[in-house]
Amino acid sequence: MSHEQVVHLQFLLLIAIIIFVSKMAGHLGKQYLKQPVVFGEILAGLLIGPSLLNIFGWPIFQPPSDEYQHFLSHGVHTLAGFGVLLLMFIAGMETNLDQMRAVGKTALWAAIAGVLFPLGLGTSVSLLFGMGMKEAVFIGAVLTATSVSISAQTLMELRRLNSKEGMTILGAAVIDDVLGIIILSFVIAFTHAGGGSGVHVAKLSDLLAGGVSAFIGIQTPVALSVSAVVLLMGVFFVLAVWVAMRGFAPLLALVDRMHASYAVPAFTLLLMLLFAVGAEYFGQVAAITGAYIVGIFVARTRYHDKVLHAIQPFTYAMFVPIFFMSIGLSADLNAMQGAWVFALVIIVVAILTKVFGCGLGAFLAGFTRQESARVGAGMVSRGEVGLIVAQVGLASAVITKAEYAPLILMVLATTVVTPVLLRLVFPHEAEAEADVYESVVTVETEEEEAKY
Amino acid sequence: MSHEQVVHLQFLLLIAIIIFVSKMAGHLGKQYLKQPVVFGEILAGLLIGPSLLNIFGWPIFQPPSDEYQHFLSHGVHTLAGFGVLLLMFIAGMETNLDQMRAVGKTALWAAIAGVLFPLGLGTSVSLLFGMGMKEAVFIGAVLTATSVSISAQTLMELRRLNSKEGMTILGAAVIDDVLGIIILSFVIAFTHAGGGSGVHVAKLSDLLAGGVSAFIGIQTPVALSVSAVVLLMGVFFVLAVWVAMRGFAPLLALVDRMHASYAVPAFTLLLMLLFAVGAEYFGQVAAITGAYIVGIFVARTRYHDKVLHAIQPFTYAMFVPIFFMSIGLSADLNAMQGAWVFALVIIVVAILTKVFGCGLGAFLAGFTRQESARVGAGMVSRGEVGLIVAQVGLASAVITKAEYAPLILMVLATTVVTPVLLRLVFPHEAEAEADVYESVVTVETEEEEAKY
Repeated sequence: MSHEQVVHLQFLLLIAIIIFVSKMAGHLGKQYLKQPVVFGEILAGLLIGPSLLNIFGWPIFQPPSDEYQHFLSHGVHTLAGFGVLLLMFIAGMETNLDQMRAVGKTALWAAIAGVLFPLGLGTSVSLLFGMGMKEAVFIGAVLTATSVSISAQTLMELRRLNSKEGMTILGAAVIDDVLGIIILSFVIAFTHAGGGSGVHVAKLSDLLAGGVSAFIGIQTPVALSVSAVVLLMGVFFVLAVWVAMRGFAPLLALVDRMHASYAVPAFTLLLMLLFAVGAEYFGQVAAITGAYIVGIFVARTRYHDKVLHAIQPFTYAMFVPIFFMSIGLSADLNAMQGAWVFALVIIVVAILTKVFGCGLGAFLAGFTRQESARVGAGMVSRGEVGLIVAQVGLASAVITKAEYAPLILMVLATTVVTPVLLRLVFPHEAEAEADVYESVVTVETEEEEAKY
Repeated sequence: MSHEQVVHLQFLLLIAIIIFVSKMAGHLGKQYLKQPVVFGEILAGLLIGPSLLNIFGWPIFQPPSDEYQHFLSHGVHTLAGFGVLLLMFIAGMETNLDQMRAVGKTALWAAIAGVLFPLGLGTSVSLLFGMGMKEAVFIGAVLTATSVSISAQTLMELRRLNSKEGMTILGAAVIDDVLGIIILSFVIAFTHAGGGSGVHVAKLSDLLAGGVSAFIGIQTPVALSVSAVVLLMGVFFVLAVWVAMRGFAPLLALVDRMHASYAVPAFTLLLMLLFAVGAEYFGQVAAITGAYIVGIFVARTRYHDKVLHAIQPFTYAMFVPIFFMSIGLSADLNAMQGAWVFALVIIVVAILTKVFGCGLGAFLAGFTRQESARVGAGMVSRGEVGLIVAQVGLASAVITKAEYAPLILMVLATTVVTPVLLRLVFPHEAEAEADVYESVVTVETEEEEAKY
């Protein structure tokens, strides 16, 4: 066999193992611990990740040559990256825009309070642990970044995504994404003198300044001014929503007449990818925000069912399990060394500041105490956004490795605890079997099965 | 942005471009040249591949660091590899086993003649061009390897896969896969003295001999004896078919009761991956043969519709276009240099020996002249199997770069010509719109759309 065939077989085997472990863990967590499926899936990643079984170190998965050193881990992260985009795209399709508009003000307050509390308390606690102002503010900033994908998935499982609280959580998460980037721009501008080697927030400015070589964002580390970031975000959101509202329906109608199999889902995926790239590159926000916008507006065309039927099953059969596994896979608890106390404190701060911060924001905007608690619980997870921000800090030497490991543990802990919290605060009678969420698609297939 | 984010955005953009170019090319080829969609999709790969636009060389797709040197091309080939497995899995689901049994003898004769003719004439022509016996036999062996994925896709498009001829082509291709590997084992044993550095056919023998380190198949180049290859193939086919017949239905019924979203399609994908790895690693045959077997037997469970609905749309919206593009993407016509005459002769030999060889086999087994021509046309494509065999020859120094380039061109030419030939020999009235093949799934979605 050539090396290429070898790594290819290794990759197929790896994905088979990931699908198996993930589905089994999701099932066991649901069956015996009564947790949402996503809980087991994330823990499964931790189980076979570097902290415990370390699957990438197994002899069977050793690279055949240096060229393929990172082939398997890159491959998994590539599929995981698709997974989270598809997940947020589907959450967009499930989004009820009217409901979201109705809770817009509440979402705004929940997001603002949910950024200020973690930033303030995270910075204070880090200072108490003897860190410098720069590190402390950065760690505070890492604590602000909500990652809504876990909550979205859990709420879809509990069939509560479209509730008042569900829409508040999703709306607040988008606002949080915007606020988080603005704060990160501030922090990076603030810490720029000390760090900045090879990593930066600026993207579009580079393109304008340095041409194509700067697109890849490495050669010219320039931090955009905060006002430029805000401007770009504004332009992106207005443009993206305008194109989506006006353009999607006629475009998909045109595509539907093409001689090509499944052209409508194919072009929907294309739009999802382009908006994801556009969100991160031009809009300075997370790629999942772009995918989410596409989901919202494709859902409002007449192709809603066709697209959902085409994309949802494969997404949940393969991509999403890989994404949830990859969160656990990327955490190495062995790197923690002695920082357990700081890690524990940061985890508690991370959970409490979101629950009470976002909860207070929602409460002040008029939600009941119970509704506010639900919103707070849904904002706890830091997921992949927290990981990325922490990585940026490590790469630009704003934080050290010893400060990085506790942040990774914090991301993991908040991610694992979110489905547990959500299940606690949402009424159980609304909960359904894990596979009820398949209902949209299985309704007809089950009828057909009846023929057998 | 971190390097990881940069390549990730590059990859998303690349996949967006591939989906767009592929769907557009498929549409244009169908609309204006009246060719099957797959024809345009393969040519599109050639268009943006290294021969012409060379997409991987665009400044926007330059790797941010050495670690990511091969990230994009590896990523595309990973998805393409999934694509061809999924394609053959779906072809398996479309397979009518009774029909295939009825044409079994014809398929056997078509396969045997379709191996002997290219081997004999390919070797003779290479000798005429002044090559040594070793190279000549190897080139003859490369010409034997049919790749049925393009024919399967074209026939599905023309809605003729389940015809007498379609089943003969698929059956003959599986037999051809077996014969091709046996011949390759002979050839490699024959040429072993001269080459053999780092590449070999043996897989299981290594495992037995060298333990785990040998699984990855690099350290100990040993050619299996031909009888061992035949034995392993036999064991694989008996075992795979037995497990599939007896095990799939109860396994999927069990899985269907799991607390996990889309568990049945997920475990079907898992089986597809495991059988693909098993086919190549233990059975010594192509991975697609394993995927094809899974498709055949999953289709015979009560989950036929559920699985097909879950897997088919995403497969055709994304994976299959990437696979067809990747065939063109991997051909670099600039490497041809002066070998055009040899290339042209080899292409003609490759096409004629399959059309007349397989055709003669089918004719002698009792097919009419027209039916025989259809079988012959369906066996022309060499696709990815030819590429892999040629790569093995190049890597093991059995053939030189100057001999390799014409073989790549031959693979490309036979692949592109196959949908054209098939469309010529199959009656046009049976042909439907390209998207008719979606009918299975769109029947209901269109009903639902009617509600809008």
